[in-house]
Amino acid sequence: MILDMFNHLFPKSYFDKFINVPGPKDLGKRMVNIPSIVDLDVRFRIMDEFGDYAQIISLAAPPLEAMAAPDKTPDMARLANDGLAELVQKHPKRFPAFIASLPLNNPEESVKETTRAVKELKAAGIQLFTNVNGKPLDAEEFRPIFDEAARLDTTIWLHPARSAAFTDYATEKKSRFEIWWCFGWPYETTAAMSRIVFAGIFDRHPDLRIVTHHLGGMVPYFEGRAGLGWDQLGSRTSDEDYGALLRSMKMKPLEYFHKFYGDTALSGALPATRCGIEFFGPDHVVFASDVPFDPTPGQFIRESIRVIENLGLSAADKEKICSGNAIRLCKLGASQLAGVAK
Amino acid sequence: MILDMFNHLFPKSYFDKFINVPGPKDLGKRMVNIPSIVDLDVRFRIMDEFGDYAQIISLAAPPLEAMAAPDKTPDMARLANDGLAELVQKHPKRFPAFIASLPLNNPEESVKETTRAVKELKAAGIQLFTNVNGKPLDAEEFRPIFDEAARLDTTIWLHPARSAAFTDYATEKKSRFEIWWCFGWPYETTAAMSRIVFAGIFDRHPDLRIVTHHLGGMVPYFEGRAGLGWDQLGSRTSDEDYGALLRSMKMKPLEYFHKFYGDTALSGALPATRCGIEFFGPDHVVFASDVPFDPTPGQFIRESIRVIENLGLSAADKEKICSGNAIRLCKLGASQLAGVAK
Repeated sequence: MILDMFNHLFPKSYFDKFINVPGPKDLGKRMVNIPSIVDLDVRFRIMDEFGDYAQIISLAAPPLEAMAAPDKTPDMARLANDGLAELVQKHPKRFPAFIASLPLNNPEESVKETTRAVKELKAAGIQLFTNVNGKPLDAEEFRPIFDEAARLDTTIWLHPARSAAFTDYATEKKSRFEIWWCFGWPYETTAAMSRIVFAGIFDRHPDLRIVTHHLGGMVPYFEGRAGLGWDQLGSRTSDEDYGALLRSMKMKPLEYFHKFYGDTALSGALPATRCGIEFFGPDHVVFASDVPFDPTPGQFIRESIRVIENLGLSAADKEKICSGNAIRLCKLGASQLAGVAK
Repeated sequence: MILDMFNHLFPKSYFDKFINVPGPKDLGKRMVNIPSIVDLDVRFRIMDEFGDYAQIISLAAPPLEAMAAPDKTPDMARLANDGLAELVQKHPKRFPAFIASLPLNNPEESVKETTRAVKELKAAGIQLFTNVNGKPLDAEEFRPIFDEAARLDTTIWLHPARSAAFTDYATEKKSRFEIWWCFGWPYETTAAMSRIVFAGIFDRHPDLRIVTHHLGGMVPYFEGRAGLGWDQLGSRTSDEDYGALLRSMKMKPLEYFHKFYGDTALSGALPATRCGIEFFGPDHVVFASDVPFDPTPGQFIRESIRVIENLGLSAADKEKICSGNAIRLCKLGASQLAGVAK
C-alpha cells in the first residue's frame, strides 16, 4: 500500500470561487491549466495505474493569506476544509484523510480552525507555509498555532511559500528563470526549519511532528554545515549573542533537524532520496509525489515509486516509508484503511 | 597525493592592510581570530598531519568589492595576487598554485587582472563571487570576464557571497541565526549557477571550467526539480517568454548543470558527498576542505579525507577526485608537483 502524503488539489467549491477567477497576476494562474487539480474523474484515472495507492489531500499554493485580507481568509479556510472533508467522506478509498488549510494572516482564527478541523472534520493535521506574507514562522504571533497542534497531538505539514526575498532576489529587477521556485522554495523550507529550531519550538514541544516538503529542503545535503558549521554559531555575527542561545538549547543544532520528517517529493532523484533517508532515518520519511505538478500526468508518482523500489531498502523500511509512517502520523484506523488495499 | 582545491588564506601584506584593520561591521572580523588564515607556521603544522597534501590557495571572503570602491579594488587585487604568487614561489611543496582575486566591481580591470594573473603570475585560475554587491553574474558587464577566462583556457572558482536578499531575508528585520551563511550561501551558489546556465554562457563557451563550492550548492540534491521541473520552465511565469528561451538552448537545463565541477567541501557529510559525486561524476569532483573555517584546526581536512576513504570509490576514481582532476584543472606540470609527493 502507498499513501501519498503531499499532493495537491482544490475542492470544486473552493476552486470555482477563489482559483478559477481573475486575480492578482500569477496567483493560481498555473492551476487552472491542470485538470486533475480539481477534476476527480481525471484524477482517479491517473491514480488507477498505481494499485493500492491513496492520497492524503491538501490544497495547492497559493496560500490563502497571499490571496485575501485577514477578515476574508477565515471563511476561505472553512470553505476549503469543509470541501476537503467532504471529499474524504465521499471517496475514502482514494482519500483516507486530508490536511487542513489555515488563514495564517489571522493567527487567532488559525488556532480556532485548527481545533475545528481536527476535532470536527477529523483532519489528519494542518498545513503551514514557510512564511506568512514575508513574516517568519517563529514570530510570536504564530506560537499559539504550534501550541494548539501540540495540544491536539496533530501533525504539521510544512510547504514552501514564495517570499519577497526571492521576488527581488539579488538582481537589478527580480528572480529570473523561476529560480525562486526551483531552488528558492527548498531554501525557504530550510530557513523555516532553522527558525523553528532556534526559536526553541522543539524544546517547548518535544513530540511535535512536522513533515517537510522535498525531503527536508537543503538540510540532508548540508548536514555538515548545520553540524560543524552551526556548532560555531555566533562566530560570524557581531550584534546578537548567539553563544548564549547555543548554551540555552537542550541539544546541538543539528540534532533538532533530525526531529523533522521529510517526504520523498524529489521528482525522481534517486541519489538525493537515498541521502535524505540516510539523514532522517526510515522512521521519519514518508512517500509523497507532489502531483499534479508533473510534466505528464502521474509521472511524479511513477518516478517516486521507481526510486523507492531501486534504493535497496529492506521490506520493513519500504513499508514504513510507503505507508507505515503515514498511518502513524495521520492516526489512520483500520476502517479508514479498509478500502485502500484491495 | 591530495590537492586541496578550495581553502582560504590571506597573504600577510594584504591581511595587514585590509583585513586586520578597523572596518565595516562584520567584514573580516572573524578572520582576525583564525591564526592559520595568515600565519604560515601555524598553517604548515596543521598540514603536516596529512602527508602528501598541498593546497591550491585563494583569498577568503569578504570579496574585494564588498570592502572598497571600484577605483580602489584593482590595486587591492594586484596586491593580493602578487602576495599569493609569492607564496607559491616560496613554498611550492605546500602551495603548488593559486587562484587569483579580481576587482569585480570594476569589470574592465577584472579582465586585465585576469590576463596578468594567468599570464605573468601563473595563476591556476580566477575566483568569482556569486553576486557582485547584489548584481548577478549574468549581467552583461561581467560577460568579458567569462570571455577572457575562456580565451585563456583557465579555470573559474565560484564562491558564494552574502547578498541583500539574505541580509533582509523574509522577516521583520533580517536573516537571523546565520542562516544566510549556513544555507543562504549554498543557495547563492545555486542561483548563480542557474543564471550562468540560462544566460547561455556554456553555449558560448562549451569548454569553460567552473568549480562550484560545497559540491554544487543545491543542484545534486534537487536535480529532479532542475530536471522535470525546469523542463516546464515558463509555466509559473506570466511576464517573460521562457518557452522561447528553452527552445533557444542547445540542451535541456539539467544537462548544463553537469558541466560544472563540484568540490567536496561539505564539512564531512558522507551521504551528501556520495550524492554529489553521483551527480557530477568522478571526473567533475575535486577535493576541497574549506579550511581554516573548521571548529578545530585541520578538522575539515581530516573529515573530508575520512569521507573520501569511506565512499567505496575505485582507486582510479579516488585518485581523480583527490588530485587527478585538480592537476588537469590547474594545468600543473611535473615540476610543480615534484615536491608535493614525498
